Amino acid sequence: MRPTIFVMDLEGCLIPEIWLHIADKTGIADLRKTTRDVADYRELMNGRLAVLDRHKIKLSDIQAMLADLGILEGARDFVEWVREKTEFIILSDTYVEFAKPLMKGLGNPTLFCHRLTTNAAGQIDGYALRSEDSKADIVRALKGNGFRIMAAGDSFNDSNMLIQADNARWFRAPASIVEKFPQFPALTEYQDLKNAISQFLL
Amino acid sequence: MRPTIFVMDLEGCLIPEIWLHIADKTGIADLRKTTRDVADYRELMNGRLAVLDRHKIKLSDIQAMLADLGILEGARDFVEWVREKTEFIILSDTYVEFAKPLMKGLGNPTLFCHRLTTNAAGQIDGYALRSEDSKADIVRALKGNGFRIMAAGDSFNDSNMLIQADNARWFRAPASIVEKFPQFPALTEYQDLKNAISQFLL
Repeated sequence: MRPTIFVMDLEGCLIPEIWLHIADKTGIADLRKTTRDVADYRELMNGRLAVLDRHKIKLSDIQAMLADLGILEGARDFVEWVREKTEFIILSDTYVEFAKPLMKGLGNPTLFCHRLTTNAAGQIDGYALRSEDSKADIVRALKGNGFRIMAAGDSFNDSNMLIQADNARWFRAPASIVEKFPQFPALTEYQDLKNAISQFLL
Repeated sequence: MRPTIFVMDLEGCLIPEIWLHIADKTGIADLRKTTRDVADYRELMNGRLAVLDRHKIKLSDIQAMLADLGILEGARDFVEWVREKTEFIILSDTYVEFAKPLMKGLGNPTLFCHRLTTNAAGQIDGYALRSEDSKADIVRALKGNGFRIMAAGDSFNDSNMLIQADNARWFRAPASIVEKFPQFPALTEYQDLKNAISQFLL
């Protein structure tokens, strides 16, 4: 029997969507697109950076906006429950600079995501992806190191992670995404996800 | 710049040595050997299982003995400090069945270790290693997935992990081990390790 890890997407699953919050705070409608809308992550991210540059928005401005983002109702209890049952890693395509301060509200679970680069003026001038298909790649690597993996996510960029995992669920995913990958049951409540995890751990 | 993970051994670094505690509780001197004494892990582990079998000691007996093992002084504060600064994973050659219940005292950090198998009578009849060189293998895998890794440990079975990591320290390691790998500075206090981690994260 192999040891187990439950991996989960962050935005939309445990905290609100970061870029929707930035769009609300700045009033810039172009920032409303997420990985739910645009399948190509670099296309999406390059567009976001161009918008920030045009509006002279710095990393520190965004960090200030995110201070009141909060977490989804029930997320902290869910994370604590999972961490008592098995190992838990958040796999996200967001950035350490955005997400790490938000982890305190979830009890500082382990977070695997990317990093941004900034210029001398503090504006975001680039990003470094850990790997090209980062979520699926790390699931493959963990399986190759003797783990059995269950995954949950809500977006296009979670689909390969769900496919690679030994067991997977959509969680609060839009119908348009679920119907493209109907092999994964679609859940919306933490209690249902807990039940699925308990089954996986048997 | 790549995101960072600090990985650390468990026994001797954050909690007392599990098998020394079992030896004390059972009064069986043969169980006093650890990875500090025997470089070949399978040789060590097979010897332990033979002793347990001879004395008819069940997994549940050991779990009861470990209930009062406790954690090292200052370990919880150290773990919480690391988890606020960067990602933290404990890499141990112990077993989920032994160590998972002990993680509550450390705030349930992420723990990568092995699993035991038991027979119908509840006696431990085997163990499954995640991989043959499990600590070094997972460090290699994490580096291959875009992370920069710092490692700390105290035993023979940590040496390959320290070698693979981007940055490493011995922590409370016996002089006999440190002198075999003198390229890694040897620390004994959590504060000194915090300072080294802070330097690594710059």
